Amino acid sequence: MDKMTFKTPLAIAIAAVSLGVSGAAMADATMEERLAELEARIIAAEQRADAAEQRAAQAEQQHREVVEVESDAEIEERLARVERHTNGEEGFSFNVYARSGLLIGEDGKSENGGPYLTPAGGEGGAVGRLGNEPDTYAEAIFNYRMRFDNGAKALYRTMIADGTTSSNDWTGGESDINVRQVFAEFSDLPSFTGAFENASIWAGKRFDRDNFDIHWLDSDVVFLAGTGGGIYDMQLADNWKSNLSVYGRSFADFDVVNSEDPGLEGDTDNLILTSNNYFGNWQWMVNGLSAADNDTRDIGAGQEAAENGFHTMVAYHGDSFFGMGEGNYKAAVIHGQGLGAETKNIGANGDLTDDAASTRLALYGTTYLAPKWRVAPAVLAETSEDRYAQGDAYDWATLNVRLANELTQNFEMQYEASYQWMDLDPQGYSGRNAVDGGFSKFTVAPTFKPEVGGFWKRPEIRLFTTFSDWDEELNDYGASSLGSDGFTGGQWSFGLQSEVWF
Amino acid sequence: MDKMTFKTPLAIAIAAVSLGVSGAAMADATMEERLAELEARIIAAEQRADAAEQRAAQAEQQHREVVEVESDAEIEERLARVERHTNGEEGFSFNVYARSGLLIGEDGKSENGGPYLTPAGGEGGAVGRLGNEPDTYAEAIFNYRMRFDNGAKALYRTMIADGTTSSNDWTGGESDINVRQVFAEFSDLPSFTGAFENASIWAGKRFDRDNFDIHWLDSDVVFLAGTGGGIYDMQLADNWKSNLSVYGRSFADFDVVNSEDPGLEGDTDNLILTSNNYFGNWQWMVNGLSAADNDTRDIGAGQEAAENGFHTMVAYHGDSFFGMGEGNYKAAVIHGQGLGAETKNIGANGDLTDDAASTRLALYGTTYLAPKWRVAPAVLAETSEDRYAQGDAYDWATLNVRLANELTQNFEMQYEASYQWMDLDPQGYSGRNAVDGGFSKFTVAPTFKPEVGGFWKRPEIRLFTTFSDWDEELNDYGASSLGSDGFTGGQWSFGLQSEVWF
Amino acid sequence: MDKMTFKTPLAIAIAAVSLGVSGAAMADATMEERLAELEARIIAAEQRADAAEQRAAQAEQQHREVVEVESDAEIEERLARVERHTNGEEGFSFNVYARSGLLIGEDGKSENGGPYLTPAGGEGGAVGRLGNEPDTYAEAIFNYRMRFDNGAKALYRTMIADGTTSSNDWTGGESDINVRQVFAEFSDLPSFTGAFENASIWAGKRFDRDNFDIHWLDSDVVFLAGTGGGIYDMQLADNWKSNLSVYGRSFADFDVVNSEDPGLEGDTDNLILTSNNYFGNWQWMVNGLSAADNDTRDIGAGQEAAENGFHTMVAYHGDSFFGMGEGNYKAAVIHGQGLGAETKNIGANGDLTDDAASTRLALYGTTYLAPKWRVAPAVLAETSEDRYAQGDAYDWATLNVRLANELTQNFEMQYEASYQWMDLDPQGYSGRNAVDGGFSKFTVAPTFKPEVGGFWKRPEIRLFTTFSDWDEELNDYGASSLGSDGFTGGQWSFGLQSEVWF
Repeated sequence: MDKMTFKTPLAIAIAAVSLGVSGAAMADATMEERLAELEARIIAAEQRADAAEQRAAQAEQQHREVVEVESDAEIEERLARVERHTNGEEGFSFNVYARSGLLIGEDGKSENGGPYLTPAGGEGGAVGRLGNEPDTYAEAIFNYRMRFDNGAKALYRTMIADGTTSSNDWTGGESDINVRQVFAEFSDLPSFTGAFENASIWAGKRFDRDNFDIHWLDSDVVFLAGTGGGIYDMQLADNWKSNLSVYGRSFADFDVVNSEDPGLEGDTDNLILTSNNYFGNWQWMVNGLSAADNDTRDIGAGQEAAENGFHTMVAYHGDSFFGMGEGNYKAAVIHGQGLGAETKNIGANGDLTDDAASTRLALYGTTYLAPKWRVAPAVLAETSEDRYAQGDAYDWATLNVRLANELTQNFEMQYEASYQWMDLDPQGYSGRNAVDGGFSKFTVAPTFKPEVGGFWKRPEIRLFTTFSDWDEELNDYGASSLGSDGFTGGQWSFGLQSEVWF
Repeated sequence: MDKMTFKTPLAIAIAAVSLGVSGAAMADATMEERLAELEARIIAAEQRADAAEQRAAQAEQQHREVVEVESDAEIEERLARVERHTNGEEGFSFNVYARSGLLIGEDGKSENGGPYLTPAGGEGGAVGRLGNEPDTYAEAIFNYRMRFDNGAKALYRTMIADGTTSSNDWTGGESDINVRQVFAEFSDLPSFTGAFENASIWAGKRFDRDNFDIHWLDSDVVFLAGTGGGIYDMQLADNWKSNLSVYGRSFADFDVVNSEDPGLEGDTDNLILTSNNYFGNWQWMVNGLSAADNDTRDIGAGQEAAENGFHTMVAYHGDSFFGMGEGNYKAAVIHGQGLGAETKNIGANGDLTDDAASTRLALYGTTYLAPKWRVAPAVLAETSEDRYAQGDAYDWATLNVRLANELTQNFEMQYEASYQWMDLDPQGYSGRNAVDGGFSKFTVAPTFKPEVGGFWKRPEIRLFTTFSDWDEELNDYGASSLGSDGFTGGQWSFGLQSEVWF
Repeated sequence: MDKMTFKTPLAIAIAAVSLGVSGAAMADATMEERLAELEARIIAAEQRADAAEQRAAQAEQQHREVVEVESDAEIEERLARVERHTNGEEGFSFNVYARSGLLIGEDGKSENGGPYLTPAGGEGGAVGRLGNEPDTYAEAIFNYRMRFDNGAKALYRTMIADGTTSSNDWTGGESDINVRQVFAEFSDLPSFTGAFENASIWAGKRFDRDNFDIHWLDSDVVFLAGTGGGIYDMQLADNWKSNLSVYGRSFADFDVVNSEDPGLEGDTDNLILTSNNYFGNWQWMVNGLSAADNDTRDIGAGQEAAENGFHTMVAYHGDSFFGMGEGNYKAAVIHGQGLGAETKNIGANGDLTDDAASTRLALYGTTYLAPKWRVAPAVLAETSEDRYAQGDAYDWATLNVRLANELTQNFEMQYEASYQWMDLDPQGYSGRNAVDGGFSKFTVAPTFKPEVGGFWKRPEIRLFTTFSDWDEELNDYGASSLGSDGFTGGQWSFGLQSEVWF
């Protein structure tokens, strides 16, 4: 209501009153008039109070609506979308694994190192990595996640990786930089129902989603990677999730046996059909491998390379420290034959014979021994025969313990002891000699972290001192760095390193 | 009007009335007092109502101001800036083209493939790409957009690309990874007015902005790339937009003819002055090429490589399916001479003779035949003579049809039929034999997409089966994969692949 | 209060009034009733006013609370976090240095160029870079910053870099792309107190944080890079900040002197212990270098390579233009011996003799001569002896002036004059001849910028014309591009280029 419309009659009433009325009647009349005026005024006041109440109510309502609806709905929605981008749930995101540092021997020069430095290393026999890594290795992972109106989601991932033992900044021309992953994966597809409701499909070049590792040995339990496609997370029964994929790997430029053309090189593809099956904490993986014409590969007189292979793993992913306390553990037994006898890097080795057979055990756990003391023991062991030559035998076992003592919010002492026993009888394959013996390594590493606590927290910056020693016999193997110039046992090394993942 | 101005006379009038009434009027006095009190109270109530109204008005106003100004201005402004970053309008953004998959032949090994596998492929004669790609090719495009206080904008773009036919994840040492683009582009420059008001300038290494392709053949209609600089979007007349750039390309390490030093290698630059002109839907491109001393290049006895070239294209970018329905189409006729006789990769071929002349036709369209049936026919054809040798002739034509049947929200069947006719008479250039014949390819590809609908939606994950066959004579050309080991016609291949762009 | 509760009595009162009362008493009774009613109504109105006032107050309060607390606290906090990501303070961020363009000589072919093209260039004697760069060089820097609950911060940085003189887009196979940095750095560690309170620690492969350059010569004053670790910003006294790091660099695959095995190659590490100390504007850097067994390196008959080295720099970072006006300047004197005689690229040169001694002066400043005229003079000079051979001497000095005239918001004219004097007596090292003379270069570069103003604003797009000339004697040096085919002095070159950093 316009205020002027009711103020105008009020003004008229006032004008009437002020026109000089007198006497009793006059008083009464005045009373009457004053009452009438008051009544009019109170009606007006009531109307104004009504209006004010309505406006107050409206203001309160608007307030709720505007603040909640506008700020808290539109703004919140826009902010939520931006947050999804910030959090890597939508759009671009960046992930990394990287390590870089120095490993220097007593002579002040780069020391031989790496978890695979022993004779058993060539067949996957890793030793502890702490204070034992001479390289800069970096993976830059670029992800892009898409959401579609129908609810479907897509992930694109590419990884650029490089590894070098050069400490120089510029390594152009000698660099190994390459693209290790390029794939797309779709999930939440509305057309996928029933057993496929939560399934996702993928194609391209990738590391298989289900690879897992023993971090302290820098060894995956299985590492399956290549180019292919497949489907994850089919729900085949209430307690049975299953994955099925095919991966190709290239076997390139190998010498061909009995070729009329002495320079002839063979090429083939190792095709791997793989299935992972999860039943609660249990995982059963089964792989079939086929590489047409790989039997034409020259792997030495009288030996024939495998064309096919089989590989299987049973693993348990434990939620405790072997049932004995808080923590986690993983245990796996792997068996492979023919092309499957490379138990870790599935399908990556084309030199295996048709009779090759390997069995590997992998085991690790993490727990707190005391409030500030973490421990992570690990075992990796393999027995393998007829690997590259009839009658050869490669047996090795690694025991490793990583111990950490958390001293401040940003500092902990890390210790690692590693022992590897090996008995390798290559039957003369590739000029290698039979050896039998043990390798040990002990490392002390003062370690800085932005926030201590747990084995999986990175980044870390470490200083370290390592002592390693081994049986002299291992120097004779001929296919490892043991025994190389001045590196014959009883070695001290020193260094520092950062390790990052996110 | 100030409310106090008329309330003051009212108060005075009321005061006057209440001053000295007497007698009978005593009861009346009480009445009078009560009235006066009521009047006073109503005045107070009115004042409070006034105040309440003012506060309500103020609250409403504040509400508008605070919510709009504070939340909806400051917060909205901050959010809008963040959104510009999220949306790639400011700061960093990431774009990709990538494909990765397996192409396996009947023998279980990688199959020869790629759109350029036929003898005509070497001269740009692509066939359909569906079910025909054996590689992992990935472009990672990193953009950074800047906005300046004066309204100017700048874009920096760099592209890292890699292509490999290896299915292995680690390709270090054999990788082709390289940096294909590094350039800066400025727009909205306040100093640029008149015809230059909407112009942008650039310099560096880049793919020209105006390249366009026939996607299904993996062939650009023109692909101009190199290092240089130029200006886009000069408005020369109401209906005439024009671009002008110079590009350099390196001709490196070629053998020099009649050199006294038999190992002497020549190097030069192919400089390309290029202009694109747009008149409505029409595009007219004209290019002049110059490569000093390229005539010293040894391209075979009695032949002389070109030092200069000319290249022009007239194209029409249609908003319908050839005027016959919804969709789009593009049509282009290209002619080039000398160094311009490489009609697609402008300036990339230094082996062309001075007399080389090529004419190319490119044509494609997309439309829906029925609600769930998309079709995209394409034609690419070229006639070329005196290309690398006097009297040579390279004539070829490709017809391709991609058909897609959208079956669910996430699945469609794709079909591609491709036929290429070629008549190539190299006149002995580079050991090539004259051939004449046809190549055909047919592919069926069950395809998964997060959201079906339209030819330009990616990502896709495809399975495919391809049958290809060709005239036996084509196996004799000597400069294509046709005729190589076991690849002589009637080939089946199988595979799967992801393709992504965003 | 329910409005109906007081409106109902009002309605009754009104009904009573309207039931036809008459006479004076009646009038009085009515008066009384009307007064009572009015009093009741005014009480109600007052109560309503009270309620309205409370609601208004509450609305105002709520308004403040809701808008400020909800929007301005939760939303603001979420927005602030997102902004930290957008601004590169948290999460991923992207930085770049890049240049790309053409440098063409009078013959229409790529011209020799680069700041290090003269005979002195091999020893660090740079000349002006404007209109003198023939390459595409791009650094892509990927950062990831983490914040921890305890207040600690971590930075991960990796840099992918590539440089090429090819103008082609695809340089796969010949590319120099490589990873130049991979490191982690921690700061704000709560455990670090006292002198270490503001210290940060790092490890990995990196460019040292404290490198600084003379931009116009494309020469760092010191450039220390490699793999190692250290600590920055220890507060050793009120006016003394100190850094301490160790860097390793690889000396790889060098020929070994007097080796029985003629193909034997040596490898070692050059370990650099480095400390930077800041006292106000003063910087004192001191470096010790050690490369075990580098004395076995074959650097020519009768010469012995250094195993150790020493390097020191005193620098002043000025806040004015040499105390003469607004701007800045930097001045440094560097001295090095043995492995430290490479004064700029600390530790990068293993061919230095044990007696090698170098002293370098670096000096530059920037200021405005007039409102639109900027000037930046620079001097870089070195004297060095017994560098690679007993009795050799390398003396050179470069004077450079960059001048810029800001003409519009987006355009300025840049000019650069550069003169280098050199007297090089290699004593026959590596087949080099003694030369003595001067090189001059003058460049005019019309330059476009999104926003002019200041020497440090990028991106820029430049056109340029350069004239360079030199003493004929310099063509005889044998280890520079001067004197190469047709490049003997009095050279004009032309080009365009973009330069970007952010």
